[in-house]
Amino acid sequence: MKKMDKHPVYLDNAGTTPMVPETIQALDDAMVNSWGNASTTNYYGRIARQTLENSRHLMAQSINAADDNEIVITSGGTESDNTVIYQTARARQKLGKHIITTKFEHEAILRPLEDLEKNYGFKVTYLDVDEDGQIDLQQLKDALTDDTILVSIMTVNNEVGSHLPIHEIGEIVKDSNAWFHTDAVQGYGAVPIDVQKDHIDLLSTSAHKINGPKMIGFLYRRDGINLPSLIRGGDQEMKRRAGTENVPQAAAFAKAIQLHFENDQLQKNAEKYWALKKQLVQGLKEHDIDFELNGAFDNDHMTPQTMNIWFKGVRSDALLTDLDLAGVVAAAGSACTAGSLEPSHVLVAMYGKNSPRVSESLRISLGMTNTSEDIDRLIDVLANLIPKLKNAD
Amino acid sequence: MKKMDKHPVYLDNAGTTPMVPETIQALDDAMVNSWGNASTTNYYGRIARQTLENSRHLMAQSINAADDNEIVITSGGTESDNTVIYQTARARQKLGKHIITTKFEHEAILRPLEDLEKNYGFKVTYLDVDEDGQIDLQQLKDALTDDTILVSIMTVNNEVGSHLPIHEIGEIVKDSNAWFHTDAVQGYGAVPIDVQKDHIDLLSTSAHKINGPKMIGFLYRRDGINLPSLIRGGDQEMKRRAGTENVPQAAAFAKAIQLHFENDQLQKNAEKYWALKKQLVQGLKEHDIDFELNGAFDNDHMTPQTMNIWFKGVRSDALLTDLDLAGVVAAAGSACTAGSLEPSHVLVAMYGKNSPRVSESLRISLGMTNTSEDIDRLIDVLANLIPKLKNAD
Repeated sequence: MKKMDKHPVYLDNAGTTPMVPETIQALDDAMVNSWGNASTTNYYGRIARQTLENSRHLMAQSINAADDNEIVITSGGTESDNTVIYQTARARQKLGKHIITTKFEHEAILRPLEDLEKNYGFKVTYLDVDEDGQIDLQQLKDALTDDTILVSIMTVNNEVGSHLPIHEIGEIVKDSNAWFHTDAVQGYGAVPIDVQKDHIDLLSTSAHKINGPKMIGFLYRRDGINLPSLIRGGDQEMKRRAGTENVPQAAAFAKAIQLHFENDQLQKNAEKYWALKKQLVQGLKEHDIDFELNGAFDNDHMTPQTMNIWFKGVRSDALLTDLDLAGVVAAAGSACTAGSLEPSHVLVAMYGKNSPRVSESLRISLGMTNTSEDIDRLIDVLANLIPKLKNAD
Repeated sequence: MKKMDKHPVYLDNAGTTPMVPETIQALDDAMVNSWGNASTTNYYGRIARQTLENSRHLMAQSINAADDNEIVITSGGTESDNTVIYQTARARQKLGKHIITTKFEHEAILRPLEDLEKNYGFKVTYLDVDEDGQIDLQQLKDALTDDTILVSIMTVNNEVGSHLPIHEIGEIVKDSNAWFHTDAVQGYGAVPIDVQKDHIDLLSTSAHKINGPKMIGFLYRRDGINLPSLIRGGDQEMKRRAGTENVPQAAAFAKAIQLHFENDQLQKNAEKYWALKKQLVQGLKEHDIDFELNGAFDNDHMTPQTMNIWFKGVRSDALLTDLDLAGVVAAAGSACTAGSLEPSHVLVAMYGKNSPRVSESLRISLGMTNTSEDIDRLIDVLANLIPKLKNAD
């Protein structure tokens, strides 16, 4: 096993990504030049406003929004998701109190929905997910009623990487009364999204998953979808999100978008990540490591970035700790519940709560800074650790 | 009149402040070194967590909080204020549906309160403010009932700079059923605040008012005040504010706090700002400019940073435009409603809607980068503009 480098290999890009020199530079430039209050009309405010609107334009373009003003900049994925759930409920409860989602959404969707069910009389249908991490479109069709006001289904699952059939879902939902929201926090910048072709009404993103800063994201809101503001006060963001705009972070987010979307980069990253994932699978096989992949393993059903591996008989908490000591950072479950002792609701949804996969799986998620040397290193470390840890307790 | 510099003189520090080299450097350092997900336990997550907790400690110290864990980091003043209003209403509505505030709070307080009144059956008492920008404590005492669940009164008014008697208000509210919240977005870093001595239960701040980054602030929440989370999802901030933590911005906020609070800087800034304000008053008198100050003009009743001046017969919109052209940035009303055609609700509350002050007043607000040369420049420009604009239409 190689000696530990000063900086561990980072393979938890679905948890967060490092900022890169280009996004750091963009933030720096804007801190110095575009620090004004974008809602004022003075000299500094006008510069800030220009930077903000240029950034918004790149956000809109990246998902093929029809108009820049369909982009509302928020404090990130969680706020965007919460806004959709709570404010759709608020705006549309007179039309119906039924919402459809899946069993393996992010907590930023599930917690508000639980709240609506428990305290506000809403009914939520949680669609099943199969062992490939996919839903049954017929179950979605059957669940839709005249009372369904919202369908919220993630683009890409954050733990196993399943890529859901957003276009087909959009085709189904558009003929109903429901709005269609997709939590694209994990899919944005990783798989192609076209809000017009996919009939998406609402879409959440987060910058820190694509090498931008934390606590900034956007909520795409199709023109005509009248969602009341969750955060109220000043008139910022066309009265759809109060609070002084963070122009430097918006500019860095825009730079991250350029890095991930321009020059066919989405496709190039996909090819690179699939090659790295296949390198890992090959390496594990060569070392006779006993594993199975969780979820599908093809580009139609899985994001290029992520893979989730069941190491049979190896507890993931022990493996993670030893990987960390050996200079490799990976994950089990999501970062947002990393301190929790609860089993992964994602793997439970896919395999049942009694499956050993629930406590014996590792998430590897790739980013723009990863190389094939990182995967070699991971293989070396796993080849060393797995036999020691297997059935250790 | 002097030739316009490349960069206009900035006298709108109550609107927002420039970041300074020290806070930019702190953000840069943390973007490079503390980019990990602070809710993960891996190598990078642990570094980020340490930076976050060091930052939280400085936030807690700055207001004499009893425990660092009373600090919840949020996306800024507006989110903090919204959390207090909506979630106090939610948590305590069974105890009572009455809230007390003042007529000249920020929109981040007033808009949620209007919403609670209009749509959720709450009753709000809006305390009067006098021509000094002060409330009548007897009116507060008389308004408190057993049904009052919250008193929300700002520390410093954002438009005129009145410094409210927070300690006396705290003494009154502590003997009632109500929680005491102060929106300290404009007072924090400008006037001394001690949450323990002042009996403050909840307090909102924002970093960008003290040369830190935008879209970050904290909500102080006294231990025992059980406020449900407004933004729900992951377990971040001890389950009180979901969403991946913005550690770099927290570090820059902490650096801004050090710059404003350490080495008796609060007092030093106060002396500097009062001297600059008196320089301006003197200069206006020497040029025989017809003006009156809005609000009180002493350190017990006004923040050092801000002053609000009525230029008799001079429309503030025209004056602002001409100031901007002459290379001086000031404000009329708040930035958050700068695009609005509504008259300032603050000046209306103090002087009545028919007072000419409402449309003829200018806000000058100072910051750490201002010098007496800036005030000289402002005096020169005003001496030139005011006679031209006076009774122009």
